[in-house]
Amino acid sequence: MSKKNTLSTESYKGVRDFYPEDQALLNYIIATWRTTAERWGFVEYHASILEPSELYKAKGADNEEIISEQTYTFEDRGGREVTLRPEMTPTVARMVAQRRRELGYPLRWYSIPNCFRYERPQRGRLREFWQFNADIFGSRSSASDAEIIAFAAALMRAFGATEGDFEIRIGSRTHLDEICQELGFDDAKKKALLALLDRKNKMPVADFARAAGDLGVPLSLLEGGKVPKEVAEALSFLEGLGVSNARYDPTIVRGFTYYTGIVFEIFDTHPDNNRAVMGGGRYDNLTELFGGDPLPGIGFAVSDEVMRIFMDVRGLIPQYLPPTKVYVAVAEESLAGEALQLANELRSAGIATAVDYGERKLGDQIKIASKHRIPFVIVVGQNEITSGTFSIKNLDTGEEVSYERSRLADFFNA
Amino acid sequence: MSKKNTLSTESYKGVRDFYPEDQALLNYIIATWRTTAERWGFVEYHASILEPSELYKAKGADNEEIISEQTYTFEDRGGREVTLRPEMTPTVARMVAQRRRELGYPLRWYSIPNCFRYERPQRGRLREFWQFNADIFGSRSSASDAEIIAFAAALMRAFGATEGDFEIRIGSRTHLDEICQELGFDDAKKKALLALLDRKNKMPVADFARAAGDLGVPLSLLEGGKVPKEVAEALSFLEGLGVSNARYDPTIVRGFTYYTGIVFEIFDTHPDNNRAVMGGGRYDNLTELFGGDPLPGIGFAVSDEVMRIFMDVRGLIPQYLPPTKVYVAVAEESLAGEALQLANELRSAGIATAVDYGERKLGDQIKIASKHRIPFVIVVGQNEITSGTFSIKNLDTGEEVSYERSRLADFFNA
Repeated sequence: MSKKNTLSTESYKGVRDFYPEDQALLNYIIATWRTTAERWGFVEYHASILEPSELYKAKGADNEEIISEQTYTFEDRGGREVTLRPEMTPTVARMVAQRRRELGYPLRWYSIPNCFRYERPQRGRLREFWQFNADIFGSRSSASDAEIIAFAAALMRAFGATEGDFEIRIGSRTHLDEICQELGFDDAKKKALLALLDRKNKMPVADFARAAGDLGVPLSLLEGGKVPKEVAEALSFLEGLGVSNARYDPTIVRGFTYYTGIVFEIFDTHPDNNRAVMGGGRYDNLTELFGGDPLPGIGFAVSDEVMRIFMDVRGLIPQYLPPTKVYVAVAEESLAGEALQLANELRSAGIATAVDYGERKLGDQIKIASKHRIPFVIVVGQNEITSGTFSIKNLDTGEEVSYERSRLADFFNA
Repeated sequence: MSKKNTLSTESYKGVRDFYPEDQALLNYIIATWRTTAERWGFVEYHASILEPSELYKAKGADNEEIISEQTYTFEDRGGREVTLRPEMTPTVARMVAQRRRELGYPLRWYSIPNCFRYERPQRGRLREFWQFNADIFGSRSSASDAEIIAFAAALMRAFGATEGDFEIRIGSRTHLDEICQELGFDDAKKKALLALLDRKNKMPVADFARAAGDLGVPLSLLEGGKVPKEVAEALSFLEGLGVSNARYDPTIVRGFTYYTGIVFEIFDTHPDNNRAVMGGGRYDNLTELFGGDPLPGIGFAVSDEVMRIFMDVRGLIPQYLPPTKVYVAVAEESLAGEALQLANELRSAGIATAVDYGERKLGDQIKIASKHRIPFVIVVGQNEITSGTFSIKNLDTGEEVSYERSRLADFFNA
């Protein structure tokens, strides 16, 4: 082992290390996603991050560009081309197609995968991120469109957001198809229009108008028109559910080519965070790639990092507290065995307990407990062991209370 | 989108799809790891699966073989060599080294990463697996050796294992160092002995004896001898903690070169599963690679798949139940909006509720609820809406009870 060349302690570019405070926040985000999804009747599935690259190539020509430029794709030692999943939809389509006849519909599934994209790291875009995905398979009803949108709104509220904090913008791919038909667009021109609309909010109005003109699309076609039937129906159901911050927005199209019906985005209304937090839509043909009849689906996704930014601009990030409730310190190293035993008694009673081995001075041990933000300390010394009475010290207030050994847990369980 | 060539629904070789029942079991395993670790005062950290390949190469020559043959290692689009982590220890050493002065010691950390190894898939060995890791940094005390072993034993019991179900075998790298010194072994011969001992339980006794003879190691040296001091101390602390199924085993060495003190394995005693379930040891030099003084550490790991096999051979796998408590079925499609509203009322009261949109017959909707193992069904029809009284049907017993709309949640919360 060479000690001459020291290794860097930096993580790989564009990914994150999760120290306990970071991990506690990620766990809070994941637990909130999970609890809310299960409340709404969704059940969890999962898959490996490794997928055969064909899964992404098959989706259409525009995705080949993503595969070749924006994914982690490599050949394994057995000559298989493998991709670290950039999103979950192709995987869930594959899994549903595999057990298509065994699964009952409507099927309500959610997942919390980590996903990977090779791109320049920037605010809200990292090379590895966690992404909540929820989908309903086997329904063509606008009620399922409305329910998935209402669920997305409930997910926002579960993080402490109020209706004024976000706006639900609903577009329709059928509307886009009609425009393209009216203009006699071929697939290439349709894709160019889709790409332009998807970038609309990231470019100056004049640039957008010029690009639309270059494509031969009158702005009036994009911005006006009557509300498509499926959007009107979804809005009506949403009204019945008390969701009042949703509206039709013909410019919402979403980047992926696989959408076939409504598409939607949940926009942050905060001036410092002008972005879509969540987004999704209806895709009624996705399982066709695997053979068999098409199975309708509707779903959406949100990433941990975009969720964190939303919480951050509003002060909704909860304060970090460690899971540990008490630190057992020890007056001298020879009593380490006694400290271990006392710690185990507390653990048996359900109290999250850390313990010191007495290699450092008692004062330093208490400083460590404080540094780790553990709220209480119990010191094990010869007097305490002999008397059978221990003090529980509150590190915030300095207050101490004495308990008999057999009753220590009562203090924490009270 | 071509419909001619249908895609395979198979996952990538050697990894798993997690359908809801599989995911529920993985979640149970992860939740049991997490709850027990936090009870023992450990806090969670995490990192990306992507690591610079140097992190693994630096550990020693034998690991270069692992890097070149058993990992997923590739060059990213920016020319960086990157590896999907095969284990967590190098990552945690990197993270601790990075914030070395800010962290307080002893530091008790755990993590539940997914890890990747390119190897022939077999029972208990997959290309992607979840692995629980727990480490204590900053203590050289045998009390910390004993505590990490006692914690590993508690983790076994948390899954329903009793002491007779497993045996804790403790070896020592210092003992191995002494043998090598006595025999005048160089590093290459030491590595060969380490590799041989690590394979001992997987080969016939005669083959092991022959190989030891070829290396010039008398069997008496390996199997006899007095108990090393650090093992004797750990065993004494363990006795004080009531852990009686631990013993000294000089043949336990563990495969990784980085161990420097005690090493241990928890063996399954079931005749159908003769394998180590958990394993770990002391490594007092790991952070040296990143510069600065050595920081002592001790830790262990266990994978989800080996844990699952342990549970399986003993019938300890819990029965699957979905999180969803009630299915709201709807008598006709025109009432879908009413069904959505009723479902939301139940969710607001904390009841995990799925809902149907009425595209299938009522009987089929109830069959779907049953197929998803949802225990209760509420039917929304015009009569129910008018009367304000709904029946809750138990799908197991067929029993029905009637409740006023505003009191439906009371049934589930009772």
